[in-house]
Amino acid sequence: MPVEIALYQPDIALNTGTLLRLGACLDVRIHVIHPTGFHFSRAAMKRSGLDYLEYADFVEHNSFAQFDDWRRQAGKRLVLLTTKASQSAYDVAFTPEDILLLGRESAGVPQGVAETADLRIRIPMREGLRSINVSLSATLIIGEAKRQTDGFKTLT
Amino acid sequence: MPVEIALYQPDIALNTGTLLRLGACLDVRIHVIHPTGFHFSRAAMKRSGLDYLEYADFVEHNSFAQFDDWRRQAGKRLVLLTTKASQSAYDVAFTPEDILLLGRESAGVPQGVAETADLRIRIPMREGLRSINVSLSATLIIGEAKRQTDGFKTLT
Repeated sequence: MPVEIALYQPDIALNTGTLLRLGACLDVRIHVIHPTGFHFSRAAMKRSGLDYLEYADFVEHNSFAQFDDWRRQAGKRLVLLTTKASQSAYDVAFTPEDILLLGRESAGVPQGVAETADLRIRIPMREGLRSINVSLSATLIIGEAKRQTDGFKTLT
Repeated sequence: MPVEIALYQPDIALNTGTLLRLGACLDVRIHVIHPTGFHFSRAAMKRSGLDYLEYADFVEHNSFAQFDDWRRQAGKRLVLLTTKASQSAYDVAFTPEDILLLGRESAGVPQGVAETADLRIRIPMREGLRSINVSLSATLIIGEAKRQTDGFKTLT
């Protein structure tokens, strides 16, 4: 399986839509963990005119607990991207079983969720500058994870 | 010098703003090649509430010709990211002298500009799905270029 992305209670419809389009193009499954901060549904995404929605591979989960149960049974490693981690995303060996978890745009993830993750990583940034748009952060690190796991080799 | 990004006549203010914020956080200089499809100026960006504008390192160029003169004198290699290229961005050896050129959201770059570039590369995607948001495309490939040129090692 290629690496996947999970969005924890996303706040901003545009970011979610942009990542669904990225996922469609790069063959990355997107998990959407409810409750979302906007009305998320296939019909709502379709009405918003999202390109490539029919090609997007996404799964909705009613709660983080339900998502976490599923991913444990599926043997997935949960890798949280957070500004609070000490380990750089560029010092990690990614595996095809990884799911990259992104927090809410407004508030990241609660501490309990952070502790549930198997690994917590950050994007190296300039001192004192700690925040990149969530969809860009996801893009940067899913790119590195796919590169390491030969995830671009199956694309053309 | 770390790798840089150039935006050819960008159309969408939000994408440019998002990339200025990325550039501030990741220490990537952004070149904005006029005319832009929206009113771009430091004052306009500031009014739009862009975070980190004071840390963004950006240079405006009045025209592509002026930009191209400058980058040749500076010894920069111009690398165009385009869906029309045959070479994968993941088969390229990036150098610290590279500038990654992104086309307009609506129309890419004219053929003359594409031919002016030293190298034309594409992001591998699923067959028939050819388009990722410009700011995400830039993020994906500047990440790979920085990784190759040790550009994350100077960040914390």
